[in-house]
Amino acid sequence: MNKKPTIALDAMGGDHGPSVIVPAALDSAESNPHLRLIFVGDENVLRQHMGDALTRLGDRISLHHASQTVEMHESPAKALRGKKDSSMRVAIDLVKEGVADACVSAGNTGALMAIAKFVLKTIPGVDRPAIISAVPSMGGHTHVLDLGANVDCSAEHLYQFAVMGYELVRAVEDKDNPRVGLLNIGEEEIKGNEQVKEAAKLLAGAHINFIGYVEGNDLYSGNVDIVVTDGFVGNVALKTSEGLAKMINHSIKQAFGRNILAKLAGLAAMPVLHSFKRQFDHRRYNGASLLGLRGIVIKSHGNADRLAFANAIGIAVKEVEKAVPSRIGERIAEIFAERKTA
Amino acid sequence: MNKKPTIALDAMGGDHGPSVIVPAALDSAESNPHLRLIFVGDENVLRQHMGDALTRLGDRISLHHASQTVEMHESPAKALRGKKDSSMRVAIDLVKEGVADACVSAGNTGALMAIAKFVLKTIPGVDRPAIISAVPSMGGHTHVLDLGANVDCSAEHLYQFAVMGYELVRAVEDKDNPRVGLLNIGEEEIKGNEQVKEAAKLLAGAHINFIGYVEGNDLYSGNVDIVVTDGFVGNVALKTSEGLAKMINHSIKQAFGRNILAKLAGLAAMPVLHSFKRQFDHRRYNGASLLGLRGIVIKSHGNADRLAFANAIGIAVKEVEKAVPSRIGERIAEIFAERKTA
Repeated sequence: MNKKPTIALDAMGGDHGPSVIVPAALDSAESNPHLRLIFVGDENVLRQHMGDALTRLGDRISLHHASQTVEMHESPAKALRGKKDSSMRVAIDLVKEGVADACVSAGNTGALMAIAKFVLKTIPGVDRPAIISAVPSMGGHTHVLDLGANVDCSAEHLYQFAVMGYELVRAVEDKDNPRVGLLNIGEEEIKGNEQVKEAAKLLAGAHINFIGYVEGNDLYSGNVDIVVTDGFVGNVALKTSEGLAKMINHSIKQAFGRNILAKLAGLAAMPVLHSFKRQFDHRRYNGASLLGLRGIVIKSHGNADRLAFANAIGIAVKEVEKAVPSRIGERIAEIFAERKTA
Repeated sequence: MNKKPTIALDAMGGDHGPSVIVPAALDSAESNPHLRLIFVGDENVLRQHMGDALTRLGDRISLHHASQTVEMHESPAKALRGKKDSSMRVAIDLVKEGVADACVSAGNTGALMAIAKFVLKTIPGVDRPAIISAVPSMGGHTHVLDLGANVDCSAEHLYQFAVMGYELVRAVEDKDNPRVGLLNIGEEEIKGNEQVKEAAKLLAGAHINFIGYVEGNDLYSGNVDIVVTDGFVGNVALKTSEGLAKMINHSIKQAFGRNILAKLAGLAAMPVLHSFKRQFDHRRYNGASLLGLRGIVIKSHGNADRLAFANAIGIAVKEVEKAVPSRIGERIAEIFAERKTA
């Protein structure tokens, strides 16, 4: 709880690189006096974005040179083998070495996952790391995993995702017994594929709060805290939501711009529409955790702006404070012990 | 084009049964003077909902007695074996016998699909029927299939879905060469599962306008006309969208009810918000087609209201006018012929 978190930043990653990441991170440092930041990247470039922060924030801020950058569309295999001095790799190395407590990157997801897995390794008993993020829901928010790290998942994988998600939400949300649901479809004849049915059996015996099957609408219904699915389905659900939200947003704007009366109505409605938009501001949900690694790695959207990237740093801080990887490690070890004696 | 459509209605199906279905269907008959309707169900019950329609609309309306009803949560196998005189079964039988050109039901999807497959059979060359429906998109709408009939799909199944969807949209939308996309996820390392990759290869050789992979957001982007995926993913994408739309709708209402100022703003904005809501009114998208059968079967939402059910009838009428099953049959036959000579 009282750990002072040190976060390593892949300061060259994402669509905007240091021009967004540096100011976002400095915002975080200003607002959290316990936070230490290591900016990893081209030192000359980074200095240009620092202003007087290095003197103002003293030893809470440091630069760590890295000569390479992983490109947004570079293949993970190439990034892993060929870019050992990339800002992404060095930031993760700092976590491995214990110099940093967590790493935040807006770089390419595939490369980040491949490098993080290679450098940090998975928690014993975890077969595959998964990507988890929160979405807003009626009365709160819902965590969803996997969001794209694993296309095909066995029942055992889904089971492990459920356990990891449960421990994460217990830790960072201070929820004692969050509800875990397994994503399925509702048609009687065809309820679920084999993996999902088998995972439901495994989860019924796990000591977590498994509430059974949920459907797509439950991502937003507030009836469940953690939704478990494979990476293909999770990714489609998330992207579909992004697409729909964008279309609705666009249409609201268009409707209020249609003619002079609509524009006047829009002026009157503006404060309300703003508060409504703030509630669903995707920037306030930016930051997905690579769960199941022996270290904390947070993936920011590539096109995150200052507020969004600062949010991802906030998620990293919380996971450090709550020691998420060791909590997951302990729970997985318990389960293995139970299974052996069973 | 000039065919006068006769639609058989499963008048007992859905959450509301004849109390919604009869007035909805009569609305359709009033507004389309060529439409003939056969109401299938308990004749005594149906008569009570008819008012003076039987005399007013003359031989365009008829009743066809069926003694049983398929329950909303009845197992498809049980409905198929045990309810041979159900309104659902008899309505489909009428299509099989050529008495009706199409059937519309708000009954349970699993049972409807099972009975329709058994009675009507699939089009030669089609391995599995699929469920397709439209969603609103930027600048129009997108058709998505499969929405839940097939949980696990091979590449060949996805290929056939694409061909069927292409022919349907060509027919009912009067689009000459609609764009077909295969739903996938964007992470480099893990792009797609084996079925999706293999289906992409098959589709590249098909004589349809295959534009390649699309992602979840493309359901709403307007960049594609037909999105092809398996029934698990399609169902989750649709239900997720429903859940998000419901939450947003709820939150807009809440935001405009928060205090007196917000309420006044809501009054000013009401006409605009109404036009916005009308644009995305899910009732105007009610009606999914069971595609790939030797006959037209339209599934309405179980809880459809009058406007929504009438919309489903409208879809049935369009598919009759455009002879969708024979168009699909011809295209599939062509493909088989090409494959033999290839």
